[in-house]
Amino acid sequence: MNEHPPPKPDLPRRLVAELLGTALLLAAVVGSGIMGDKLASGNVAIALLANTIATGAALVALILAFGPISGAHFNPAVTLADASQGGLPWREVGPYVLVQVLGAFFGVGVGDAMFGEAVFAASRTAREGMPQLLSEFVATFGLLGVIWACSRRRSSVVPFAVAAWIVSAYWFTASTSFANPAVTLARGATDTFAGIRPQDVPGFVVAQLAGAAAATVTFAWLVPALPASAASVVVPGDEGSRA
Amino acid sequence: MNEHPPPKPDLPRRLVAELLGTALLLAAVVGSGIMGDKLASGNVAIALLANTIATGAALVALILAFGPISGAHFNPAVTLADASQGGLPWREVGPYVLVQVLGAFFGVGVGDAMFGEAVFAASRTAREGMPQLLSEFVATFGLLGVIWACSRRRSSVVPFAVAAWIVSAYWFTASTSFANPAVTLARGATDTFAGIRPQDVPGFVVAQLAGAAAATVTFAWLVPALPASAASVVVPGDEGSRA
Amino acid sequence: MNEHPPPKPDLPRRLVAELLGTALLLAAVVGSGIMGDKLASGNVAIALLANTIATGAALVALILAFGPISGAHFNPAVTLADASQGGLPWREVGPYVLVQVLGAFFGVGVGDAMFGEAVFAASRTAREGMPQLLSEFVATFGLLGVIWACSRRRSSVVPFAVAAWIVSAYWFTASTSFANPAVTLARGATDTFAGIRPQDVPGFVVAQLAGAAAATVTFAWLVPALPASAASVVVPGDEGSRA
Amino acid sequence: MNEHPPPKPDLPRRLVAELLGTALLLAAVVGSGIMGDKLASGNVAIALLANTIATGAALVALILAFGPISGAHFNPAVTLADASQGGLPWREVGPYVLVQVLGAFFGVGVGDAMFGEAVFAASRTAREGMPQLLSEFVATFGLLGVIWACSRRRSSVVPFAVAAWIVSAYWFTASTSFANPAVTLARGATDTFAGIRPQDVPGFVVAQLAGAAAATVTFAWLVPALPASAASVVVPGDEGSRA
Repeated sequence: MNEHPPPKPDLPRRLVAELLGTALLLAAVVGSGIMGDKLASGNVAIALLANTIATGAALVALILAFGPISGAHFNPAVTLADASQGGLPWREVGPYVLVQVLGAFFGVGVGDAMFGEAVFAASRTAREGMPQLLSEFVATFGLLGVIWACSRRRSSVVPFAVAAWIVSAYWFTASTSFANPAVTLARGATDTFAGIRPQDVPGFVVAQLAGAAAATVTFAWLVPALPASAASVVVPGDEGSRA
Repeated sequence: MNEHPPPKPDLPRRLVAELLGTALLLAAVVGSGIMGDKLASGNVAIALLANTIATGAALVALILAFGPISGAHFNPAVTLADASQGGLPWREVGPYVLVQVLGAFFGVGVGDAMFGEAVFAASRTAREGMPQLLSEFVATFGLLGVIWACSRRRSSVVPFAVAAWIVSAYWFTASTSFANPAVTLARGATDTFAGIRPQDVPGFVVAQLAGAAAATVTFAWLVPALPASAASVVVPGDEGSRA
Repeated sequence: MNEHPPPKPDLPRRLVAELLGTALLLAAVVGSGIMGDKLASGNVAIALLANTIATGAALVALILAFGPISGAHFNPAVTLADASQGGLPWREVGPYVLVQVLGAFFGVGVGDAMFGEAVFAASRTAREGMPQLLSEFVATFGLLGVIWACSRRRSSVVPFAVAAWIVSAYWFTASTSFANPAVTLARGATDTFAGIRPQDVPGFVVAQLAGAAAATVTFAWLVPALPASAASVVVPGDEGSRA
Repeated sequence: MNEHPPPKPDLPRRLVAELLGTALLLAAVVGSGIMGDKLASGNVAIALLANTIATGAALVALILAFGPISGAHFNPAVTLADASQGGLPWREVGPYVLVQVLGAFFGVGVGDAMFGEAVFAASRTAREGMPQLLSEFVATFGLLGVIWACSRRRSSVVPFAVAAWIVSAYWFTASTSFANPAVTLARGATDTFAGIRPQDVPGFVVAQLAGAAAATVTFAWLVPALPASAASVVVPGDEGSRA
């Protein structure tokens, strides 16, 4: 269909894409949490609804935009899983994770600044206990499962599938589904609706990595990668979209 | 367009896909019901809105992910209808239905556990009477009609059409649209927002099967299956998506 | 791409599709109005939000399902506009409009019955005055404009574009956007949230037909039909979807 | 795939498309603000939710409809950015911007008239201060980034990506994301929910143009335009959709 597909972007461009995309995602998560909280007159369901819609819509827009550049991971768990299956060279994992974390903190600062809040402040929102950890395991297991299944069979739908999964998991998990170690770290640094106490961060990250690993093993068996001849039948610009 | 389409997955993989997909769907339905109920300060409309969005989004993500593997039925009524039209061999119906029911109960348990609720408990929510049964008939008639019409003419849209139908039916039926015997059985085992009293389950299942049968007969005439030469013109990975 | 496109369905199948589709659409509009009203504890914004989501989602599902069969008009204004531009033979306009009106009343009855309401009852909801009529003109002008522009250039998006337009117009018009003479007539026969007093129906219908005519003339100039050689390049199953 | 793509529409048709599309967009923004405000019983979060859904849905419908005609800019910042990269001849920028501004004012008038409000009245809603200006910079930076990245790699998704971005930015920016100089000017002329005091308009416009310029420079490096041979592989009717 396309004799001359666009070449894979070079590493600097991909790192800037990961940095920018993760920053804008966090600005959306934190900013919409503040706005929802401010306007909802104490009805937490309505605040979370606003937070959910803003996050899901941001994911659609950002994965559509950055997917063809860097794969739109925005998430160290996705980057590690991708490397474990040969999708990303191991030597690029460090730089990817570094810019994701930097971008996440930058986005939290921008989100806070847009509302005149302190740019960085340790969160005081407790998120602990087994139900929360089970929630993060399930949320990340499902996220990686959706990414693996879709990206191996119909990669053009990944942006919609990922956003839909996160929208759902915001409501069906007790933790509101962080499902992303970089996001979790950075949300420790905002004392607003979307925050998480720094001491609760490590447990979340461990549960997320366990969920990602379980999904990667399960779906490697469930949806084997196609041989190259079949996998090459994709629309140009869609092949790299995993987030 | 594709010289080497991916082969149809073997039965064990398809059964695991049905089990996992149905479990995650039920975790989403039950978990978001608990969360909505907890946060909505008694406003049932807002709780149901949250439940609706979480369920619709989960359906989009899960059908996109599991459709190319198992067909993403997650529903004995869909499996039976598919077998009646030659889509699935009859000998596979038993295993499909079994894993759907197991997956549904497993998902209910996970949903409850994520919120620290009793993993299984008989529901005390009454759902009975003619309006409720008519609701289940209409909801399942429409669900199967949408599946049959879309899967025979433009199968890539099935995930969106099914999710849209269920989102709508959550609100326009008096029963909030269970439309799925495995889901109904398992929701008898959670005493939370999404539950249904065990004694009300059989009526729901009968109404659902009647609606599915009526739709299957109607749409077999309305949208005849295309001859193989025309039906084969589908995008790889899309041919099996019915849920 | 497809040597043997499916033949255009015969008239009886298309009429049954229009009847069923319009009935299910009205069941969704009326039923979700009742449910939203019942659950929203007097907050009309939340009731209308539920009504909006249910209607938009029903449109997506039903146009995706019935578009390839009958064109999924569900609306006499669309049928008349289509005939005026040579899309539908004039001799089929009468039967189309007849089954749309019958289907609409049938759907209102089903919607009421699912909630144990009187199956038919004259509405007492006043909807009158210039702002309401201007609203119906704008809503129907936009609806037909969207249909004409999309169906002539990228017909596969029509279901999403139409649903999106109606979702928006539920909120930005004072009338909540009926935009459909068959729907308006039938909603005169339910004394629930979605009703309209019978004496207000004629004004709405006139404003709707005027909006549809203005859009049809405007878009015939703005987006001329393509010559057959170009127009034939469509995905099988998508060519008839106008609603 | 298509031997005879439709020719690019002439300038008069494109200008009418920009005028109509911008007018309908503003009618949706202003009208849904009035409706949400009226129905939400003082809960601003619910009013903004209604405003958000109506705006996002209108963007989907209008960009799908008008994209293949005029590019569906509806926004002087987009038109200027497009001209700076060689997409639109500079001599057409003046006419484009003129009809966008005229259309925006016309739409505000229609929105007000549909609710019986004064057709034009200076707004008294203050929107000022650094957080607001930073918000407009971020919102427009992201909007142009999404447009540039998507239109250069998978232009058929632009309507969904743009609508998703704006839906998100309505909630995560303190300004509710105007991100459009024509829209900002015209919203100065309605004293309703969506208004902005005339004296606050210039600051917003400067921040928007700065954000658009920053995104255009960044994404010119990040996502270089493809050579013509690769860029020509697009579905007919999709190549012009930028908004």
